[in-house]
Order: sequence, then structure tokens, then C-alpha cells
Amino acid sequence: MITPYFLESFWGEKNNGFDVLYHNMKHGQISSKELTDFIRERSTIEEAYARSMTKLAKSAGNFSQLGTFAPVWDVFKSSTEKLVSCHMELVRKLQELIKEVQKYVEEQAKAHKKTKEEVASTLDAVQNIQTISQALQKSKEIYNAKTVEQERLRKEGATQRDVDKAGVKAKKATETYKAYVEKYATAKSEFEQKMSETAQKFQDIEENHILHMKEIIQSYSQSVNETQIQIGELHHEFVRNVENTSVESLIQKLSESKGTGKERPGPIEFEECNTAIATEGAKPRKRKPFGIPGRSKKDKDTDSTESTEVEAANTANGAPPGYYGAIDIQNANVPQVDAEGFCIRPEGNENDILFSL
Amino acid sequence: MITPYFLESFWGEKNNGFDVLYHNMKHGQISSKELTDFIRERSTIEEAYARSMTKLAKSAGNFSQLGTFAPVWDVFKSSTEKLVSCHMELVRKLQELIKEVQKYVEEQAKAHKKTKEEVASTLDAVQNIQTISQALQKSKEIYNAKTVEQERLRKEGATQRDVDKAGVKAKKATETYKAYVEKYATAKSEFEQKMSETAQKFQDIEENHILHMKEIIQSYSQSVNETQIQIGELHHEFVRNVENTSVESLIQKLSESKGTGKERPGPIEFEECNTAIATEGAKPRKRKPFGIPGRSKKDKDTDSTESTEVEAANTANGAPPGYYGAIDIQNANVPQVDAEGFCIRPEGNENDILFSL
Repeated sequence: MITPYFLESFWGEKNNGFDVLYHNMKHGQISSKELTDFIRERSTIEEAYARSMTKLAKSAGNFSQLGTFAPVWDVFKSSTEKLVSCHMELVRKLQELIKEVQKYVEEQAKAHKKTKEEVASTLDAVQNIQTISQALQKSKEIYNAKTVEQERLRKEGATQRDVDKAGVKAKKATETYKAYVEKYATAKSEFEQKMSETAQKFQDIEENHILHMKEIIQSYSQSVNETQIQIGELHHEFVRNVENTSVESLIQKLSESKGTGKERPGPIEFEECNTAIATEGAKPRKRKPFGIPGRSKKDKDTDSTESTEVEAANTANGAPPGYYGAIDIQNANVPQVDAEGFCIRPEGNENDILFSL
Repeated sequence: MITPYFLESFWGEKNNGFDVLYHNMKHGQISSKELTDFIRERSTIEEAYARSMTKLAKSAGNFSQLGTFAPVWDVFKSSTEKLVSCHMELVRKLQELIKEVQKYVEEQAKAHKKTKEEVASTLDAVQNIQTISQALQKSKEIYNAKTVEQERLRKEGATQRDVDKAGVKAKKATETYKAYVEKYATAKSEFEQKMSETAQKFQDIEENHILHMKEIIQSYSQSVNETQIQIGELHHEFVRNVENTSVESLIQKLSESKGTGKERPGPIEFEECNTAIATEGAKPRKRKPFGIPGRSKKDKDTDSTESTEVEAANTANGAPPGYYGAIDIQNANVPQVDAEGFCIRPEGNENDILFSL
């Protein structure tokens, strides 16, 4: 139970308390509209922040995919996108809250309208005591003036007729004055009773208003706080993800994705030409034409005037002119030496490079 | 000690590993520039957020100072201003970090330039083995072709002169081929040694690069985290401040600041006019003229045709016409009744309303 401050503090000269309390109630509508404005502005700020963060996430996503560090951008991108979600979630909650506050603003306006009707009789009582106080004061002044006038005439030895005439006026003024004293007593009693009730009513309204405002603020705080907690967790996740992306794992990842091969160049020895097989090999044999997946890169650097035979053979197989069947020696199964060119190894398996002659 | 992935994975056909690793190193410069961009963009976002929050704090400060709820806006304003400080502090930290990263970008570029010189001999070894591999391949083909040609001439029964001529050519081709086999062995050995050293050097560079990048990210994370913690504390302070602003305290505050008085209207009784004092009082006396601070409000509602005397007296005191000296009865020390108008209480103290006659 709250101390009835309003009941205690809105009396005083001029009986203006009612006016002050009534306007104070109306200010409550301004407060609740301003609270809506505040939450709306906050929501707008969060939305703009989220939008900027979306751009930042896109930037991280568009950063170079080359280099050892590149995979780390995924961590940045994903974390920033989650940050966007957090802020958008806050925006959604604030928008819902704004709807609630707007509902309250409407209810409050209706309640104030109803209250205005309910306190109309109090306003009457206020105006009544104000009017009667003034009239009482005036009637007292007139009474005093008339009484002094009669006394003056008597002392100055005026005619009895004039003294009597003044006496009638003084008596009339006395009656008016007495009547206002009585009227004032009634008005005062009425005013005190009405004003007491109304002051308490206004305090109840204010109490409920502030309670409602505090509930809204609590809801606002809760939403902001939830977002804070989410962002905190997100941040720790980011830190953890960066920590977990070890230097070794990045070095390994690059080696796997960009590695050029694990085989060092093999030794190459002199191979004597087996002319018997070379000649025999000139007859068409059932075998795959030249070309192994991933090994079809051309070697165009060779320039020889003595390669006519090789070129002719290649052309027959659809190989471009200038191709000499030079393949990547280093990629062969070391230490076994590949047989290329015209010298075809009798034991050559399907994966060996074969030339039709 | 990290596995020497680069040393293992950048051999293979075409000996392109060097090229891939060299470019990978150069991509490191892109990464560090992109990290600067990311932090700069984040800083810009935080600054814009802080600027919007400053506006929000101003809004809260400009909200109505009227009504019971008004004091709560101070809590909003102060909390929002502190939120601005947190974000501006983050901006300051990020700006400092950007300077550090820029310094790293420069150092990195210099280090890469130095590395380029250091690995120049490796590039030579790469080009050497590539060239010799091709030449070896070509010489082998020519050797095979010449040997087959000589064999063909012999089998087809060509003249001894032609067979001998072809024999000379075949012998020359054999020597060239053998020479390239030897050259290749030397080039291969040189290439393997240089490439091993350089692959490890490139891996060391990448390891240091990623470590440095991770340090920067850690510094970035720490700044963001510190801000998070500050904002969290700030939020709890806000919640506490709102909670501490009780409904009762707000009701009390308004009653104290806007209260119109604690005195209810006092009773007013009929007061007989003491004509002796009234007449005596008509003579000029040493007393304060009419007017008490805060009580000078006029009462213009009284309309009487019998107030001429009072008006005359007021006019003499500088009071406006229509003023009857009606003062606020309720403010008097109830239950003692003020004596106003022409009836001056003999015991009237200086604070009483006095009229000069």
C-alpha cells in the first residue's frame, strides 16, 4: 500500500490541486507515446546495424578463396551472419512490444476519457468553492463598508433618516455575508470529500500507469538482455572456431587442395631401343588411344625438325601437330621407368602411355 | 613441430609446386589486407551504431519532463549515453588494431620481396629440370627414330653406304640421348635439394603468417568481448535503476515538485466588524503596503456595483480596479481566520494582508 501522497499534497491556496493532478494524468499519455517512440527508434537502430552486418558478412564471403588463410573467412562469415540473426530477432521482439505499447496507449486514452467524466462533479465542487470563496470575501467587504458607513453617519450626527437608511443597507449586507458563510461551509465540505476521492483516484491511475510502463520496460530489457546473451555465446563460439582452426590444419588443407603431387622426379636411365618390337608395334593393335585422365596436358615447347615421323603418328591419333608424346616423367611409378615414344614396353599395362604407329 | 606438408605435397608432374607455393605466399598479402578491411568495416558499423545511439539518448533527454513517469527518462538517457561510450571505446580499439595490421601488411610485403630473391635459385632449378626433361624426351625420340630407320634400311637391303650413313646418325643420337640422361640426373638432384629447402621455407612463411593473423583476430575478439561485457554490465545497471525507481518514489517526487499545498480549506466564520478599530485604522499607520510574495494573484471574477469604496482603496495602493483583496483563505493558518478588507485584526502580524485606508 503506497502512502496517499496525492491526497496529502494537492490542497493549498487557490484549490488548484485538481487541475494539476488532471493534467498530470494526461501527461501519462505523452509518456507512453514517448516510450513507444524510444522502443521504435531502438528497433530502427538495431535493424540498421543488422543490415550493415549483413554487408560485412557478404564482404567476408567475397574475400579471396586463395591462400592458406582463406578457410578462416568462413568462420567470420558464419559468425557475422549469426550476429545478424541475433539483432533481427531483437528487432522482431521490439516490433511486437511496440504493438503492445500502442494497445496500451489506446486503452489509456479511453480510460482517461472515462475518468474525465467520473471527476466532472469534483471539478464542479472545485469551481463552486472558488466562486463562493470570492463571493464570501466580497460580501464581507461590503458588510464591513456598510457597517463603517452607518457608524460614520451616526458619529457625524447625520439625520435619523440617513442613519436608518444606512442601517437597512448594513443589515442587508450582514445577511448576505452570513448566507455566504453558510454556503461556504457546505461547499468546503463537498469540495473536501470530492477532492479526497479524486486525489486518490488520480494516484491509483498514476500507480497503474507506472506499473504498466515498468512492465513494458521490463519486457524491453528482457529482449535486449536475451540478445546480449546470444551475442556473448556467439562470440565465444567465434573465438573457439578460430582457435580450433589450427595453423597445422590450414597448412594441411592447402596442401591437399593445391598440392601438385607427392612423387619426386624419378631417375631416368638410358633405354636401348628394341627395334623388333618397335617395328612389330607399327602394326595396328587393339589398345586405348593416347590419353590418360589428368595427364592430357600438352608439351608444346619441343621444336625439332626431325620429328616428322612422330608428328605423323600423333596426327593419325588425333593429337595436335607439334605433340611428341613427352609426358611427365616425374609422375610415373618410380623407380620403374616408363617406356614412351616408339619404344613400347611389352609388359605395358593400360595405364601406360601408348602410341599407335 | 608441424608436419612438413609443403615438403611432401608440392612435387608431382610438371614440377609446378614452386609456382603454386610462391603464389600462395603472395595470397597472404591479400588475406592481411582483407582482414584490415573487415576490421575497418566493423569499426565503421560500430561508429554508426554509436552515432544513432547518441541520437536516441538525446531523444530520451528531450522527452516530456512533465508527469509522474518523467524522471525515468533520465535512467534511459544515462544508460543510452553509456552504451554510446562502450561502442566508441570499441571503435577506438579497432582503429588502433587497424594501424597494427597495416604495419604488418607493410612488413609482410617487404618480407615477401626478400623471399623472392632468396628463392630465385630454386626457380632456376625448376626451369632447368623442366627444360632438360623435355630435351631428354626429345633426344630419346630421335634416338629411337634413328635406330629404327637404320634397322629398316638394313632389312630392306639398302646400300651399305646408306646403312652406314644411318648408323652415324643413330650413333650421334645415342650420344645426345646419353648426355641428356646425365644432365637430367644432375638437374634432378639440384631441383630436389632446392625444392625441399624452399617448400619448407614457404611453409614457415605460411605458419608465421597464420599465427600473426590469428593474433590479430584474437586482439579483435578481445576488444569485441570487452565491449560485450561492458554492455552486459550496463544493461544490468539499467534494469537495477529502473527497478529502484519505485512507483512510490515517483508518486512522492511528483507530489513534492508539483504539490499545491498540504492545508485543506479552513473553516470561515462570521466576523463582526469592529468599527472603532476600523475607523482608527483609517488613519495612516506605519505598516507594509498590500502584497505578500506569492499571493498577488488577482481575483477578477467578482462583479459588484457596491464595491466602489474597496476599489478606491485598492487603487490608492496601486492595486488594479476590480481587485477586492480576496486572498486565498485556504492558505491561512487554519483554524485561525484571517481578517482582511477594512477589518484589520489588532494582533495582525506583518504577514497578514493589510489595507491602507
